[in-house]
Amino acid sequence: MKTAVGISLGYNQYGKAEVRLVHIDRSTPVHQIKDVSVTSQLIGDFAATHLTGDNSSVIATDTQRNTVYALARLHGVGPIENFGLRVARHFVDKYPQVTGSRQEVEEYSWNRISTSVAGLHDHAFIRGSTEVRTTVVTKHGADEVVISGLRDLTVLKSTGSEFHGFPEVEYTSLVETTDRVLASAVSARWRYVGVEHDWDKTFVGVRQLMLDRFASTHSLSLQQTLYAMGEGVLSAYPEIAEIRFSMPNKHHFLVDLSKWGLDNPNEVWYAADRPYGLIEASIVRDDAPPAGGVWEGISGFV
Amino acid sequence: MKTAVGISLGYNQYGKAEVRLVHIDRSTPVHQIKDVSVTSQLIGDFAATHLTGDNSSVIATDTQRNTVYALARLHGVGPIENFGLRVARHFVDKYPQVTGSRQEVEEYSWNRISTSVAGLHDHAFIRGSTEVRTTVVTKHGADEVVISGLRDLTVLKSTGSEFHGFPEVEYTSLVETTDRVLASAVSARWRYVGVEHDWDKTFVGVRQLMLDRFASTHSLSLQQTLYAMGEGVLSAYPEIAEIRFSMPNKHHFLVDLSKWGLDNPNEVWYAADRPYGLIEASIVRDDAPPAGGVWEGISGFV
Amino acid sequence: MKTAVGISLGYNQYGKAEVRLVHIDRSTPVHQIKDVSVTSQLIGDFAATHLTGDNSSVIATDTQRNTVYALARLHGVGPIENFGLRVARHFVDKYPQVTGSRQEVEEYSWNRISTSVAGLHDHAFIRGSTEVRTTVVTKHGADEVVISGLRDLTVLKSTGSEFHGFPEVEYTSLVETTDRVLASAVSARWRYVGVEHDWDKTFVGVRQLMLDRFASTHSLSLQQTLYAMGEGVLSAYPEIAEIRFSMPNKHHFLVDLSKWGLDNPNEVWYAADRPYGLIEASIVRDDAPPAGGVWEGISGFV
Amino acid sequence: MKTAVGISLGYNQYGKAEVRLVHIDRSTPVHQIKDVSVTSQLIGDFAATHLTGDNSSVIATDTQRNTVYALARLHGVGPIENFGLRVARHFVDKYPQVTGSRQEVEEYSWNRISTSVAGLHDHAFIRGSTEVRTTVVTKHGADEVVISGLRDLTVLKSTGSEFHGFPEVEYTSLVETTDRVLASAVSARWRYVGVEHDWDKTFVGVRQLMLDRFASTHSLSLQQTLYAMGEGVLSAYPEIAEIRFSMPNKHHFLVDLSKWGLDNPNEVWYAADRPYGLIEASIVRDDAPPAGGVWEGISGFV
Repeated sequence: MKTAVGISLGYNQYGKAEVRLVHIDRSTPVHQIKDVSVTSQLIGDFAATHLTGDNSSVIATDTQRNTVYALARLHGVGPIENFGLRVARHFVDKYPQVTGSRQEVEEYSWNRISTSVAGLHDHAFIRGSTEVRTTVVTKHGADEVVISGLRDLTVLKSTGSEFHGFPEVEYTSLVETTDRVLASAVSARWRYVGVEHDWDKTFVGVRQLMLDRFASTHSLSLQQTLYAMGEGVLSAYPEIAEIRFSMPNKHHFLVDLSKWGLDNPNEVWYAADRPYGLIEASIVRDDAPPAGGVWEGISGFV
Repeated sequence: MKTAVGISLGYNQYGKAEVRLVHIDRSTPVHQIKDVSVTSQLIGDFAATHLTGDNSSVIATDTQRNTVYALARLHGVGPIENFGLRVARHFVDKYPQVTGSRQEVEEYSWNRISTSVAGLHDHAFIRGSTEVRTTVVTKHGADEVVISGLRDLTVLKSTGSEFHGFPEVEYTSLVETTDRVLASAVSARWRYVGVEHDWDKTFVGVRQLMLDRFASTHSLSLQQTLYAMGEGVLSAYPEIAEIRFSMPNKHHFLVDLSKWGLDNPNEVWYAADRPYGLIEASIVRDDAPPAGGVWEGISGFV
Repeated sequence: MKTAVGISLGYNQYGKAEVRLVHIDRSTPVHQIKDVSVTSQLIGDFAATHLTGDNSSVIATDTQRNTVYALARLHGVGPIENFGLRVARHFVDKYPQVTGSRQEVEEYSWNRISTSVAGLHDHAFIRGSTEVRTTVVTKHGADEVVISGLRDLTVLKSTGSEFHGFPEVEYTSLVETTDRVLASAVSARWRYVGVEHDWDKTFVGVRQLMLDRFASTHSLSLQQTLYAMGEGVLSAYPEIAEIRFSMPNKHHFLVDLSKWGLDNPNEVWYAADRPYGLIEASIVRDDAPPAGGVWEGISGFV
Repeated sequence: MKTAVGISLGYNQYGKAEVRLVHIDRSTPVHQIKDVSVTSQLIGDFAATHLTGDNSSVIATDTQRNTVYALARLHGVGPIENFGLRVARHFVDKYPQVTGSRQEVEEYSWNRISTSVAGLHDHAFIRGSTEVRTTVVTKHGADEVVISGLRDLTVLKSTGSEFHGFPEVEYTSLVETTDRVLASAVSARWRYVGVEHDWDKTFVGVRQLMLDRFASTHSLSLQQTLYAMGEGVLSAYPEIAEIRFSMPNKHHFLVDLSKWGLDNPNEVWYAADRPYGLIEASIVRDDAPPAGGVWEGISGFV
C-alpha cells in the first residue's frame, strides 16, 4: 500500500461512542430500569481503510450501535460488566478481521419515586446522584480483562482531617492545619482477575468500603485516606488485582473575617474551583498478574 | 452628564455572582452542612459610574461577597429564603443609594455517609442528586418578593403515558402512541405571597406533591402532567400565588429492530439529546397579587 | 374543565428546543455554510391539553422541528432574524389556535480553511470562535418584535483600566488600583424597531462598535465601559430602541510573589473562576416604543 | 510500615491541577498575552504520606502552584513545551525525593482586537477559537519526553467525502453514500524525539499540514483522512516519532423531506450529538525510539 517510506499505521481502534441505551424490564408490573452509555470499539486488521479507503473489512460504526441495541433486546443488560463482555465477544467471535474489542460502559442511577400515599412506585423513577458506575472490558483474542470503577463519588468530611509536617521550602506559603475540610470527587477503577464474578455484589461492596474508609480514617493527608480506601478494597476482595484512584483535593478555604472583628472557628468556608490538588495512585496486590496494556487509553490516570 | 442626546441608562443591577459558601454548623458533634451559591445584586442610583466612571456610590462587588460571608458567620445560613432576605435587607437598609437588591441563592444537597459499622456518620457526607433548590429574593424599597424553586429534578415514567389525538397537519410525522416513556428534568419556581413562611417545610411539601402528581397522573400529554403538578401545589399551599414550570420532554425513542426479526415491546430505548420538546407554563391563583416585574431576569421562562 | 376552584392556567408556550440545522448552499462550487440551533415555540389556546389531555389543537413539537427543516429547504436560511420571522409567521398564519410564536435562533461561526497551496478552500471549513450570534423573534398576532444579540464575546484589556474612588464601608477589603486587567465575556441583546432591516450588516456594525468602544475606552469601571459600548450602538443605529448587556467581570488577580523577593509589575496573573463580578444594564432610547413583555423569558437579564 | 500483607503502593503522582496563569509581556507598548493552564505533578518516594500520613517529604501542592507563578515571573512563559520542561526540571533538580515530574500545559488563544479606526490594538484582545494547544512533558530522572498536541480543532467538509464498500452484515442498516458531510473535532498528540526544537514553528506547521490534508484528501473514510493527516506530519517533521489522533465522526444526517414532496440535494442536515463515530489511531515512524510509558495517563487515547 502506498505510503511514505518508514511510516506506518500503529495501534488503532474505531467504533461508536456514547450509545445511550435505556432498558426497561417489564416482566412484572414492578419495572426495572437500566440506563447506560456504551462506547464500542473494534481492534483488528483495518489498515486498508486507513491507507486506501478500502472499507471491505469495516464493520460500520452504525452496525456496532445496532448490535448494542439488539443484544440488549435479546439478553437484557444485567451487570454492565457482563454486557460489555457479551458485546465484545459477539464481535470478536463473529468477524475474523476483528481480533479485539474494547467496550466501555457507564451506568446512571435511578431510584423509585417514594410517593406519599403508596410508597415506592412501580414505574415512576427519579434520577439518583451524579455518581457514575463504569466498566472497561478489553478483549484481545481470548484474553479478557475487566476494569470496573466509579466516578464523581463526591464526599466531604467537616472535621477529622489535618495537614502538617510538610517541609517549608522555596515558594511554600501553605500554613499547617490540624483541622480542615477534606472534600473530593472520587474516581476509581479496579482491575479484576478473571471474568466470572458477582459484579453487582462486588461493586456495592467496594463502594461501601471506600465510604467506610473515607469516613473512618482520621486523615493526615489525602494520600493517606486514598491508600486506606484502596487497601481496604484489596484486603476484602481477592478477585481484585489492583485499584487506581484519582482524587482531586477540592479545596475549601476558611474565610478570614478578622478584619471586621469576627472569628471563624471552622464554620464559614469558600469552596474553590481551580486550581485544585490532585492525588493519583494505584494500590496493587504483590502477586497480581501483569496488566498488559489495558490501562492505556483509560481516560486520564483513572 | 455627557452622553448622546436622547439616550440614557435604563434598568441596571450589579454585584457578585456565584459566591460559593459552605457553612458547617459545629454546635454539636453531629455537624450540619449547608452548601450554597449566592449571587448578590444591588439596584439603585448608579448612573455616575456608568456615565463618568465616578465610583463614589459603588458598593464594590468584593464588599458584597464579604458581606455574604460575614452574615453567614453572624447568623448562620438557615433556609435560603431567609438568608436571601437577610442579605438584601442589609444592603437596602444600610446604604441610601441602594434602593433595591436581588439575591439569588442555590442550594446543593448532601447526605450523611451511611457506614457499615456505625450507621449515619457525624461529620462525613456524600453529595446528593443533581437536583438544586433555588430562591430569588427581590427587594425594592419595602416591597419584598420571594420566588423559590428547584431545577434538574429528573424523573421518568416507564409506562402510564400516552400521546395521541393531535392533528395530522402539514409536516407531521409523529406516530400516535398509547404507551411511551415520559421523562423530564423539571425546573419550577413558585412565587410566595408574603415573606414569613416555614420555608423548609413548604419546600419539602411542594417537591413531594410534584413527585406524587408526576407518578400518579396517567399522562395524555406532558402538558397535562405539568398542570396536574402545578394545580396540586396551588391547591395545597395558599401562600403560593403562582407556579411556573419549564419541563423538557426528554425523548426516549423505541429502537426499531424489526429489520432483524426482533420485536421490541417497549423494552429497548434510545435516550436522545437534542432536539427535545419543551413545555413551559404558569399555573396561577385567580386572586393572586400582581407579580410586578419580579419574573424578569429569571433565567429563561423559569 | 375540571380543576380546583380559583386556579387556572396562565401564560404558556411549548415547542421543540435546539433543533440543530446545518444548511449547505451548493449553488456554486464555493459552498456557503449556515450552522444554527432553532428553538421554536407556539403560543395560543392550548388549555385543553393542560386540563384534560385533549390534544386536538396541539401542533406536535415534532411537526415544529420538521417545519424548521422544510422551510430551510424551501427558502434557505439567510439572516437568522429573517428565518425566525419566517417560521413564526408560518405557524401563526396557518393555524387559528396559534395566536403567537417565539423563535429563538443561535448561529455558530465557521471560516473557510486557509490551505498552504490553494488559499481559501471551497468546501472545507474550520469552526470559528465560541462567540454565538443570537436572535429572539416574538410574534403575537400581527405584532412582531426582533431582539438580536450575541453571547460569549470574550475580550480582555491588559492595561487602560482602573478602579478606585469607591467608598470604604463595612466589609470592604478591595484595594484601589490604577492599572488592572479587565476581562469579560460579553452577552448583549438589542431590540429593533421594525422588522425590515439589513440584519447582517447591522449585526456586523454593532459588534464592531462594541469592540471599538471596549478597546478605546480608558475604563474607570466596567460599568463605564458597558455604557460606552451601548451608547455607541444606539448613537449609530436609530433602528435599535434599546440594548442590554450582561458583562461578567472575569477577575484576574495579580499574583503576590513578594514573600520570595520577587516583584510583579502587572505581568503574572491568576485568572479566577468564581465568584465573579456581574454588571448588567440596559441603555435605552428616550423615544423607544414600549417593549411589552418581550424581554420576559429571555435567559437571564440578557 | 503497617499495611495488609501482600498489598503495596504502586505508581503514584500528585500535584496541583489547572493552575490558571495569564502572563502579560509589557516590555513594549504592544503587549503580548499568554493564557495557559498548568497541571503540575511530582513523582518520587512518597510512600510515607500514603501509609502513615508522614508528610516530611511532601512538596505541598500549593508550593507547586506558587512555583509555576514564580518561574513565569522569572523567565516568562514562552513556548509551553519550554515552560513545562523548566518547571519539571526545577522540581527534579531541587528535591532528592522527587525523581520525576509530569507537567501538562494547555494554551488558549487570543487575537488582537481589530478596531475600525486604528487597526490592531496594542493591548485589547479577543478570545480566539475553542481550539486548545497542549503539551505533556514527562521527566523521569534524566529522561525527558515531550508530547505536544491540540484538541477541539473542529473541521467540516461539505462535499468530497464518501463512505461505501463496507460489508452488509448482521445488524447493518447504514446506506452507502458517495457524498456526505464529514465533520470532526480533531484531537491529536505527537511525540517528539529530543527536547530542543523550535516548538512554536513546528506547532504551526503541524497544524497547517493537518488542515491541508483534511481539506485536500478526497475522503473514502474518516480513517483515510486521519491517516493522510498523520502521514503528512511524519513525512515533514523528522523530529516527530509518532502521532496519535482521536477523531469523532460528528454525524450530519441528511433530513428526509420526501414525505412532503421535497427533495434534499445535500442541503439541509441535522447535526447529531450522540452517539458519534470515534476513530482513533497512531501513525508511527518505523525507527522511532520506544515510548516507554509516557502515553499512559494521557486523557483517553489521545
